[in-house]
Amino acid sequence: MTAQDQGIKVLIIGAAGMIGRKLTARLLSDGRIGNESLASLILADIVMPEQPRSGLAIDTIATDLAAPGAAAALVAHRPDLIFHLAAIVSGEAEADFDKGYRINLDGTRLLFEAIRNAAEPYRPRLVFTSSIAVFGAPFPEAIGDDFLAAPLTSYGTQKAIGELLLSDYSRRGIFDGIGIRLPTICVRPGAPNKAASGFFSSIIREPLVGKEAVLPVGEDVRHSHASPRAAVAFLIHAATIDLARLGTRRNLSMPGLSVTVAEEIEALRRAAGEGAVRLIRREPDPVIARIVEGWPRAFTAERAAALGFTAENSFDEIVRIHIEDELGGRVGA
Amino acid sequence: MTAQDQGIKVLIIGAAGMIGRKLTARLLSDGRIGNESLASLILADIVMPEQPRSGLAIDTIATDLAAPGAAAALVAHRPDLIFHLAAIVSGEAEADFDKGYRINLDGTRLLFEAIRNAAEPYRPRLVFTSSIAVFGAPFPEAIGDDFLAAPLTSYGTQKAIGELLLSDYSRRGIFDGIGIRLPTICVRPGAPNKAASGFFSSIIREPLVGKEAVLPVGEDVRHSHASPRAAVAFLIHAATIDLARLGTRRNLSMPGLSVTVAEEIEALRRAAGEGAVRLIRREPDPVIARIVEGWPRAFTAERAAALGFTAENSFDEIVRIHIEDELGGRVGA
Repeated sequence: MTAQDQGIKVLIIGAAGMIGRKLTARLLSDGRIGNESLASLILADIVMPEQPRSGLAIDTIATDLAAPGAAAALVAHRPDLIFHLAAIVSGEAEADFDKGYRINLDGTRLLFEAIRNAAEPYRPRLVFTSSIAVFGAPFPEAIGDDFLAAPLTSYGTQKAIGELLLSDYSRRGIFDGIGIRLPTICVRPGAPNKAASGFFSSIIREPLVGKEAVLPVGEDVRHSHASPRAAVAFLIHAATIDLARLGTRRNLSMPGLSVTVAEEIEALRRAAGEGAVRLIRREPDPVIARIVEGWPRAFTAERAAALGFTAENSFDEIVRIHIEDELGGRVGA
Repeated sequence: MTAQDQGIKVLIIGAAGMIGRKLTARLLSDGRIGNESLASLILADIVMPEQPRSGLAIDTIATDLAAPGAAAALVAHRPDLIFHLAAIVSGEAEADFDKGYRINLDGTRLLFEAIRNAAEPYRPRLVFTSSIAVFGAPFPEAIGDDFLAAPLTSYGTQKAIGELLLSDYSRRGIFDGIGIRLPTICVRPGAPNKAASGFFSSIIREPLVGKEAVLPVGEDVRHSHASPRAAVAFLIHAATIDLARLGTRRNLSMPGLSVTVAEEIEALRRAAGEGAVRLIRREPDPVIARIVEGWPRAFTAERAAALGFTAENSFDEIVRIHIEDELGGRVGA
């Protein structure tokens, strides 16, 4: 940051979602991002994002990214840094073909095109949240950085296409982009939902507040996780590192902690005792078990590690972060 | 084929190109494809395809696939089998960003959407020509079937996106698709062109008719090739095999013959003697050498081999095919 620096303008698209809200809170709390001070913030989502209490200039915008002119209107603010987190989630993109392609593919492309068509000189940093859903079984025990994207859902397909576009637009100097594939976020705060991956979080989150949780799969199921706090740290890190170090491959798998359900439960026991563990009710669900079988279990994430991205080292840490960030440090009903 | 079978209707999009013309000739010569008789042929391209002399019902159509309604008009013929070969080639897609995306991405997607929106029941076989341009350096000595698509050109990006869409639309049962990544076609007939890969063909094609050819790279350069005849055979094979054998991964690298330029030249010597070899003029071009360095040298193509796709086993065979198919079997000026 130079003496003349006025700070940077940051746009978050998808600001009303869980990660968007946590990213907003972190940016406002830090007042800076990397070596840059935060000058202003534009929070956009399909629903109006909450207006944070802050001395900073903050615009909140409800907009449909795929509507004509919407992306150009956002880019007209000329943000120096854009977080593109907006997406129709996996289940909905699978159920509604048109809606998923419209938002996840067309919305992303319209955003990229709006940047391309903005008045020169303009070359913002763009951080895109991709997903491990770009990978589809069969795959090795740990997925390496050279492994093909062969998604088994429309959501994964749309994210993989977003990655390809991001690399090409970056290669052409239209923006300076990075795509980060988030692992499954755990412990996900909020109410239990119908996502097939929901149990990874609910078997921790619910017992910690004295509520019952359902475990639909065996304890030997292995999966890769990062806390919401780690996910926000990935985004901030992606926004601040020198992207020349990425070379032409602009998308990478984030590190995660690969653990079994049994290891999750042991961490819960250490944090909250046997009473909490007894609140996990086994209710095998062959449908969920089959879905989860098709998911990656681990990532080598060597490129991400070399670039300084880090996730939690133990599930105890993931549980502790949930207790700190969501429960005010208190455990128990 | 049952007794009631009326034969199949075949649509070739990109019928005026080199591969399209050879595919048309082969289909008309065979009068059938696999176990099916050929009922009729629709030849479409951006320029009006030549009307072949044939007793068969053949429509020729000049159409811009990316224009509104164009794809739907083609699909309205309700072809049982669609070859989608149309593309803006690599150099032009790199020079004209909008044109490349418009034809290679939007045109392909509009075709897929037209099939999705056609009156039920309709689920044609769709054969899409992808390209080894979906791969970008660095890569291993031989690229395996699990290697990531990380293209270094807009053309490669557009082809990789076409592959992803093809897999997703096939997974959803909209059509029964297969994407085949063609290796560099050699010996490519016709006049020398400005493609960086042109010399692989011209150092054979030109000396065989007593003309000089320029070799811009060293003789140790290794690359993977298949003849035009093999490329047409790939397309026919892709149109006739049981695609359930592909599983969910609908795109695959075709086999090729991986040879060095020195091996090419030795085959030319065996076919046409020392006089022909002396017509190759060494004129090192560092720009072309650098481009070619970024290209794949070989593919394992194990999946393709298991599915029965075969390329030439020797460069002598590639030279012989050129002499048979383009020179009426005669060598010399």
